[in-house]
Amino acid sequence: MSKTAITAEPGIPMVIVTREFDAPRDLVFRAHTDPDLLVQWLGPRDLTTAVDRYEARNGGTWRYRQTDADGNTYGFHGVFHGDPSPDGIVQTFEFEGAPGHVCLQTVTLADRGGRTLLRTVSASPAASAPPRPSSALGSSTSTSSPCTRSRSAPADGYSPARTTWS
Amino acid sequence: MSKTAITAEPGIPMVIVTREFDAPRDLVFRAHTDPDLLVQWLGPRDLTTAVDRYEARNGGTWRYRQTDADGNTYGFHGVFHGDPSPDGIVQTFEFEGAPGHVCLQTVTLADRGGRTLLRTVSASPAASAPPRPSSALGSSTSTSSPCTRSRSAPADGYSPARTTWS
Repeated sequence: MSKTAITAEPGIPMVIVTREFDAPRDLVFRAHTDPDLLVQWLGPRDLTTAVDRYEARNGGTWRYRQTDADGNTYGFHGVFHGDPSPDGIVQTFEFEGAPGHVCLQTVTLADRGGRTLLRTVSASPAASAPPRPSSALGSSTSTSSPCTRSRSAPADGYSPARTTWS
Repeated sequence: MSKTAITAEPGIPMVIVTREFDAPRDLVFRAHTDPDLLVQWLGPRDLTTAVDRYEARNGGTWRYRQTDADGNTYGFHGVFHGDPSPDGIVQTFEFEGAPGHVCLQTVTLADRGGRTLLRTVSASPAASAPPRPSSALGSSTSTSSPCTRSRSAPADGYSPARTTWS
């Protein structure tokens, strides 16, 4: 397994993650679409993941909760666009502690002679400060990605009716 | 009504559209969420729009078709994240002639003393060429936005089962 590469340029509302796995493409795909496998690897490492729903099909929705050692629970949900395949898993992603800050993710899996190169691209209009001039490149303040699994707000303080898909 | 301003920077996978309307915020909001009003203004001007479904609520889906003078039909669909309000309408947008090239749109409406400033931000991971160095800014080739209502491919040439939400 190779190191994870993360590209997040200041002023560009997109995060690109790549990682090569020593596993065939079909298995890496299953790890992303079978909820029984998903809960075994989905981070952060110190949280426990429980899947409420994972309909990996065109128009299907998903929701999972992550719980920390203090019992705080963080909910996430989204919807798939198109039937997921190793050529593309397209889905939305919303952390229920920051409703409205949605991102859109595309996962593609490329065969590398029996190994698999995973590439995840996340984009969000929530990071919609006006584009910065090129002279501002290098600043570290303009990309607060809503796609990051933040743990700053537990799932208790807002209305489930509005923000979850139950 | 003021002129429309469109911001689409090369290398940044985001399009920002702003326009001020001589109408109160609630009416501009209704024009975006009531399908009977939507079909009266949604462009392009020479196409006829028919709404199949427009569930303007958290988790609700929408689909409409646009038909040109030759009878070619172009389908679009998406899903709402969160209950739409003048503070934010968050939805996905997919042109069925380019399945998988989804974008995410946020519409906000700001009161301007009885007038309304509309701001639409669209972002897409489909425009995921690696970020270009600042020296490449100014090129016009790097932002082919999937959020643009393209008419290059009619809706006939692909499987409805895979790409539409019926």
